[in-house]
Amino acid sequence: MAADDGRLERLEKRISALEDQVAIYQLLMTYGPSADSGSDDVVRAIHHPDAEYDSGLEVFSGGDGIADMIASLPLHREIMATGSAHIATMPVVRVDGDRAYAVCHGQLLRFDKQADAFRVWRATAVRLEFRRTDDGWKIYRRVNRLLDGSDGSHQHFRDGLGAVAAIPAEAPAG
Amino acid sequence: MAADDGRLERLEKRISALEDQVAIYQLLMTYGPSADSGSDDVVRAIHHPDAEYDSGLEVFSGGDGIADMIASLPLHREIMATGSAHIATMPVVRVDGDRAYAVCHGQLLRFDKQADAFRVWRATAVRLEFRRTDDGWKIYRRVNRLLDGSDGSHQHFRDGLGAVAAIPAEAPAG
Amino acid sequence: MAADDGRLERLEKRISALEDQVAIYQLLMTYGPSADSGSDDVVRAIHHPDAEYDSGLEVFSGGDGIADMIASLPLHREIMATGSAHIATMPVVRVDGDRAYAVCHGQLLRFDKQADAFRVWRATAVRLEFRRTDDGWKIYRRVNRLLDGSDGSHQHFRDGLGAVAAIPAEAPAG
Repeated sequence: MAADDGRLERLEKRISALEDQVAIYQLLMTYGPSADSGSDDVVRAIHHPDAEYDSGLEVFSGGDGIADMIASLPLHREIMATGSAHIATMPVVRVDGDRAYAVCHGQLLRFDKQADAFRVWRATAVRLEFRRTDDGWKIYRRVNRLLDGSDGSHQHFRDGLGAVAAIPAEAPAG
Repeated sequence: MAADDGRLERLEKRISALEDQVAIYQLLMTYGPSADSGSDDVVRAIHHPDAEYDSGLEVFSGGDGIADMIASLPLHREIMATGSAHIATMPVVRVDGDRAYAVCHGQLLRFDKQADAFRVWRATAVRLEFRRTDDGWKIYRRVNRLLDGSDGSHQHFRDGLGAVAAIPAEAPAG
Repeated sequence: MAADDGRLERLEKRISALEDQVAIYQLLMTYGPSADSGSDDVVRAIHHPDAEYDSGLEVFSGGDGIADMIASLPLHREIMATGSAHIATMPVVRVDGDRAYAVCHGQLLRFDKQADAFRVWRATAVRLEFRRTDDGWKIYRRVNRLLDGSDGSHQHFRDGLGAVAAIPAEAPAG
């Protein structure tokens, strides 16, 4: 029986790890449709009360502050009113106990009625941190950097790859 | 043994839930490459016989009707012949028994030979419903709405967030 | 006990299958941020020593050769220096023992400072093969084809759908 107990425990841990991974996928992918539709209640619900969102243009503090941005920031309301798609790629995720880290691409597309097309206004390097709470996983920190070729934008992705442990421990020299 | 039995059953349920989630990811992500390559057989196979696809431009009914669109709708054949990328973001998914719901972004990129670039012709708010059949999960309903800033497009995403339960039960007032 | 043993074994197999799926998601999604940030060490780490990458413009051979492209190919360095986003959609994946196959869309966005926007320079049909090694899953082969409307690009996606078993065994005639 003891042997089975250990086997079951290991299985439970592996399933929990997969569930965490999927929960974080869902959390991150919920943001874009919420931002595009002005769903400040959803944005509040997916963020930690102490969350911080650095969009690369401005920093928003607290789940309430981020929700307020969605509800009433003039730039956000204008982007929504003229047609927007806040897009994220599937993230690379590393869960470490009650914290998790992710890296992905962000895009902000804006509708151009004249051109009958969308303009990719911003494409960003995105780093995220998540925290496990009594109410499930929440977005704790998000930092976007415009992929404009700057050293800072490259370093941002590089740091993000380090946080998700993609960078090999013994990196080849050079 | 009874205790282990319950434990095993719970594990099996959790694994099944993860398998459903992944099956729906795969189903949705299969559509784009099939549409771009005119693979009407694949499009038929991933749809429910009674599926409906409202592209925002036109409504196609039945798995056969949707496959026929891929095989012979002049607009679709022209889009394919001049170069297209039917792109979807990773969806937010909620499985509820033998039904599942999802929300994601859609994009239709078209090749512009002169510009040596792709134009994002359409970016849409996408809502989906899936049904579990004897032959596995199938796409049952898909509705795209152009993200043109209209109230209807915002409401479409908002309704989709409700269907995947992203909207908190006790939403804060305002 | 024998009954439980079989049940546990089946659970372990199902969990392993899900873990493989997620490992391949992570592997593929790691490439873009690595390419954008010039992280040749990461690119080397995620590729098989005998990997081959056919970008549609040029063929790079070996994990070292692909890493060298990231580190020093003039075109890649120029793309990075002026701002790029190497984007992939969530892939459709089929694991078959120690090999796995995937199909997805690729995009290469380049920053246009004058236009204050990103140009979708390339959108591609992407096919991948992965190999399980003692050091985990690795990218073994990647072939991109520009979605320019050519028969070759359509066939590339079509072949990819076959490799991930999306094409029904008994495809309807026509």
